[in-house]
Amino acid sequence: MNKLPERVRIKDIARLADVSVGTVDRVLHGRSGVSEASRKRVEEILKQLDYQPNMYASALASNKKYVFCCLLPMHDQGEYWSAVEKGITNALKAFSDFHISIKTTYYDPYDYQSFISSANKITDINPDGVMVAPTIQAYTESFIRQLNDKQVPFIYIDSNIKELPGLSFYGQNSRQSGYFAARMLMLTTQHNNEVVIFRKIQQGVVGSNQQENREKGFRRYMKEHHPDCIIHECNLQADSNSNDFTVLEQFFKLHPKVSSGITFNSKAHTIGEFLETDKTISFNLIGYDLLEQNVKCLKNRSIAFLIAQQPELQGYSGIKTLCDYLIFKKEVKQINYMPIDLLSIENIDYYSSVNYANLD
Amino acid sequence: MNKLPERVRIKDIARLADVSVGTVDRVLHGRSGVSEASRKRVEEILKQLDYQPNMYASALASNKKYVFCCLLPMHDQGEYWSAVEKGITNALKAFSDFHISIKTTYYDPYDYQSFISSANKITDINPDGVMVAPTIQAYTESFIRQLNDKQVPFIYIDSNIKELPGLSFYGQNSRQSGYFAARMLMLTTQHNNEVVIFRKIQQGVVGSNQQENREKGFRRYMKEHHPDCIIHECNLQADSNSNDFTVLEQFFKLHPKVSSGITFNSKAHTIGEFLETDKTISFNLIGYDLLEQNVKCLKNRSIAFLIAQQPELQGYSGIKTLCDYLIFKKEVKQINYMPIDLLSIENIDYYSSVNYANLD
Repeated sequence: MNKLPERVRIKDIARLADVSVGTVDRVLHGRSGVSEASRKRVEEILKQLDYQPNMYASALASNKKYVFCCLLPMHDQGEYWSAVEKGITNALKAFSDFHISIKTTYYDPYDYQSFISSANKITDINPDGVMVAPTIQAYTESFIRQLNDKQVPFIYIDSNIKELPGLSFYGQNSRQSGYFAARMLMLTTQHNNEVVIFRKIQQGVVGSNQQENREKGFRRYMKEHHPDCIIHECNLQADSNSNDFTVLEQFFKLHPKVSSGITFNSKAHTIGEFLETDKTISFNLIGYDLLEQNVKCLKNRSIAFLIAQQPELQGYSGIKTLCDYLIFKKEVKQINYMPIDLLSIENIDYYSSVNYANLD
Repeated sequence: MNKLPERVRIKDIARLADVSVGTVDRVLHGRSGVSEASRKRVEEILKQLDYQPNMYASALASNKKYVFCCLLPMHDQGEYWSAVEKGITNALKAFSDFHISIKTTYYDPYDYQSFISSANKITDINPDGVMVAPTIQAYTESFIRQLNDKQVPFIYIDSNIKELPGLSFYGQNSRQSGYFAARMLMLTTQHNNEVVIFRKIQQGVVGSNQQENREKGFRRYMKEHHPDCIIHECNLQADSNSNDFTVLEQFFKLHPKVSSGITFNSKAHTIGEFLETDKTISFNLIGYDLLEQNVKCLKNRSIAFLIAQQPELQGYSGIKTLCDYLIFKKEVKQINYMPIDLLSIENIDYYSSVNYANLD
């Protein structure tokens, strides 16, 4: 928090504009009592010097409280969204001096109505800013319309809905990520004529836009580069893990030629753990996200590659962007793609997430 | 090795006083916006710990000047080391308020005597701190001995010499990087029984420890996983590029079965550009570092993968570490491995180096 002294001081501006310090102060704070000529001269100098008024100082002095609401998928501790929440918590700590508070509400990612009812709870609160991991467009739309009506700025995290633009988006380019994943998958196995996509699904719902878009990108690559490769689908139940091994066993019995596969959610370890129980299956698996269980499978070689996307940084940056926009009046960038990072047993130990707490 | 002073950090005080870091900062600087109770608690903790306040403030007030010397390989503009120098320049700017100056001296990486004579020029200056990209141990040793005798702290950048430990090291784990590269190379081509290592070499000298160690790691992977694969070597002249295409043409004529290869330096584009002139050759090339020409080849598909290692961050961090140690009396970490990042045409556009100027 140690800040270097402001390089441009008010008295420098006063000297350059040939006015008093009080005049500069009045112009900076938009107060009256300044002649038109003086105001113009001061503004010209401010522009020339690219003067950044000290928003931190005025925000610290202000008593305005900011309530931010986050709308995220329900999850268990240790799952993907825990990392996003860690980032949110760290942002809350980092900006605690500026009177922000954060309320997080959850929705069932496999139940579109759940998104709508959780979203309604947020609009009732009348928050100052929102960060949302959106569900499909059709069910996100009414929430966004309400936020726009109330002029509440909002951040998309995880997936973006271009047709309903927000203040900012933080997440991977999911289609490109799936496209990249397909290339890597096809490299892992020679004579690869049958691959499989594993899903966690409930009543036909995949549970996230990211997963759907990754699969679209994956299929585009396959169509362009391996049009003859058969793409199997193996759907595991989303609301229970108890049948997973039975379903997988049946799948591998039925499809002995399938030698590689991918999951677009963060549950690759389910398949990895199954593969570890049956060493007769030679299989190359690619998954997403550095959950502890996934990394364990990577190190056990039951997962060949993991693709990572810096979820903590996403959570932190979303909240930081609300602060930048609302409190510090900074310009913010609308589209913020995360890197598409490839991790294997050989490079995982050297992978470091950004020390985001110190990003500007 | 110099011992680090015991140092109490602001965040330790915050934890002990059960207040935010910002609150501690405000108390230390006598600013308002702190409750009487918090101020008392912080002051009590400060007293208990016998806290020596604010190195930034005292450094700013001090007139002590710091001269840092960097010893780097000679290079042309736009080559790998330009990115390291950009990081150094940015560090110089970031810490300019603390009276630091940086003198960079260069050596011919293919001439060990050149390292020694450039190093001697640095010891003559009696700098306050040094950052060095070392040559092989035998020729680095006397320089390090002189620095230790004079108690000048020094940072290794690019490659580390464990036997002659410095204050800190910033760079990739080169052996592991080569090991990872070998796995990726063997994935790119089916039935890969002949591969080639391209080198830039002068009178038997490869020009960097990094390259030698990457090759060692590469060969270890090949020995473990593909012991029957033939590893050819194709040596290009280091002091001139004029013969490169002729040498490459001859190599590919002589070895038509070689379908993949690697360079451990940053000159993969030389081979990539050659491959672009002869489309009859089907070849998978892996190289290092995101030079503009390399990225161009990646996008033209004449390079399959590039491995990156954040050179700007290395240069910046090395200088920052000297400042942290000498000026701000902070604890510093000795071994700082850079990530081993894999870039392809599919994910290169989403790769972002760390915004290092804001790292703590």
